[in-house]
Amino acid sequence: MPEYDAVFYEAFQEEESVLREVLPENRKYFFTWKTVQESNHKTPPSSIISTRTQSIIPLDWAEKLSAIITRSTGYDHITEYIEKASNKKILTAYLPDYAARAVAEQAMLLWTALLRDIRAQEEAFKTFNRDGLTGKELRGRKILIAGVGKIGGEIADIAHGLGMKIMGVDIKPNHQLGKKLDIDYVSFEDGLSDAEIMVCALPLTSSTRGMLNYQLLSRMPRGSIFINIARGEISPAQDLVKLLKENILHGVGLDVYDHERELAAVLRDEIPTASFSGAAKESLEAISELMKHPHVIMTPHNAFNTAESVKRKSLRTAENLRVFFDTGTFLTPIDRSI
Amino acid sequence: MPEYDAVFYEAFQEEESVLREVLPENRKYFFTWKTVQESNHKTPPSSIISTRTQSIIPLDWAEKLSAIITRSTGYDHITEYIEKASNKKILTAYLPDYAARAVAEQAMLLWTALLRDIRAQEEAFKTFNRDGLTGKELRGRKILIAGVGKIGGEIADIAHGLGMKIMGVDIKPNHQLGKKLDIDYVSFEDGLSDAEIMVCALPLTSSTRGMLNYQLLSRMPRGSIFINIARGEISPAQDLVKLLKENILHGVGLDVYDHERELAAVLRDEIPTASFSGAAKESLEAISELMKHPHVIMTPHNAFNTAESVKRKSLRTAENLRVFFDTGTFLTPIDRSI
Repeated sequence: MPEYDAVFYEAFQEEESVLREVLPENRKYFFTWKTVQESNHKTPPSSIISTRTQSIIPLDWAEKLSAIITRSTGYDHITEYIEKASNKKILTAYLPDYAARAVAEQAMLLWTALLRDIRAQEEAFKTFNRDGLTGKELRGRKILIAGVGKIGGEIADIAHGLGMKIMGVDIKPNHQLGKKLDIDYVSFEDGLSDAEIMVCALPLTSSTRGMLNYQLLSRMPRGSIFINIARGEISPAQDLVKLLKENILHGVGLDVYDHERELAAVLRDEIPTASFSGAAKESLEAISELMKHPHVIMTPHNAFNTAESVKRKSLRTAENLRVFFDTGTFLTPIDRSI
Repeated sequence: MPEYDAVFYEAFQEEESVLREVLPENRKYFFTWKTVQESNHKTPPSSIISTRTQSIIPLDWAEKLSAIITRSTGYDHITEYIEKASNKKILTAYLPDYAARAVAEQAMLLWTALLRDIRAQEEAFKTFNRDGLTGKELRGRKILIAGVGKIGGEIADIAHGLGMKIMGVDIKPNHQLGKKLDIDYVSFEDGLSDAEIMVCALPLTSSTRGMLNYQLLSRMPRGSIFINIARGEISPAQDLVKLLKENILHGVGLDVYDHERELAAVLRDEIPTASFSGAAKESLEAISELMKHPHVIMTPHNAFNTAESVKRKSLRTAENLRVFFDTGTFLTPIDRSI
């Protein structure tokens, strides 16, 4: 018999403390900052588990699980799990939109920090020297937003507020939003040759995987900035290394990574890169190159992480769980039809 | 007889190359990144000299000078020089407003970097760990702008664009601007107790010198952010150290420093702090404390430094010089009556 009513993997300190405040009372919960694989649990300690995006749930757990809540806006990892699992009856939930503004603001921080080279400015303070510190202003700068959904829309709102010129690429242009925020909807072909900053806010699907590759991004003007706060799989690290080497990109800001689970294993658990092979190893080696580059800023899939969004996220997790305990359904279930 | 038609001190590489393009032709110019005192010139190499804010012009140069252009928006250092100088006929010029947007955008970069602790996020990437990285969102956050002039107005424009709640302190509230940007004009007393972020954009005058001291800033809520992109003399470093130690301030972003000339001498020319005394020494020691603090970001009086503003600045310097060569007057003279 499972020991807990629900188990939360990948729950970092601040998140755990907010969750403890808002989860349904008189239940038994277990929290860990570890992923499922890092926790070394042989069987699920509860039939209800909650993860973020880095846990690999063993296929032999499926028969013992009744529900999975991913505390993330992306849910491709859960859809993939259910596809392979023997038990298709597992109910699944995700958390739509809880962090759109937090992620969009982090994207803005990354592109501004790169345009003004804050790292070099701080370094130069030590000698109070200003050579080579001339940055670029935001106002009037051309930004291309790939994927103008919830997060992309917030990015457009911020860019509009800062007086930037906005181009958007989306399979379903939102013309009402476009009018409100002066978004010029374009094709990648038309937009990229003009884009001084490009932000990837696309969802990961079979058609976006690998989409922002060397071939596409090499159309950008020399000296451009590329930001990815969506999913690493959309823009391979090897291609970004090449674009930086050829000075097509001046700077890169990343919060997400291809093969992020393997990357976390290498960086957090000190698993050697050499123990991986194929595409994962190539990606890990490219990221290690990026880590040495003066104009690359990398954050650990943390763009969502503000007090405001942790609060919203924990509240929505708690609401889903409360409804599940009461009715056996979720408030924001994953739509498996798409 | 002077060797040059004009001499430019404190001209860093990028500025020199733009100036060379736009200055009146068929004249002889000399450029150095050094201050007047660092250059060791015994007599002025030209009767027309141009500085930024860190040069100390020797009083015995006054008789040989016909004109001084400070390539800065602040000009208190030039006014002070003329007050002490035996020759009051020296014509003086400054460059109003060329960098207001660049400075305002840097202020925004500083407060955003502090609210999201980009330094800790980058450090945490190395272990792909997210504990302790929860930041704060900009939207809805309360910001107090001290001095809503040209720079303060641009700061308000940016904060408004980001959906922040803006309070302004100014001796002459601009109610038209206030209406446009939702600025709530308040007294320091009323504003400080509510301000999660405070930005100093005041001019340096005898009444603002030392104004934002421990006593005043200690009224801010615990965990606040203080940004100074105006003049260091308005907010003593010793007071900021104390406010950080007492956790009243969570973070500090500075581009300007009290005793900035002495600071540049210590950092750039490796003059020992011990060779200074009194207020300068105290300030230098406090800044050295600030350099070690994890939530302090310091840049070397570089907020003005964007490609756009260097261009505007060089053009306006060239225009002033052209008019001076032609008519013996300046386009944007310093008003010595205030």
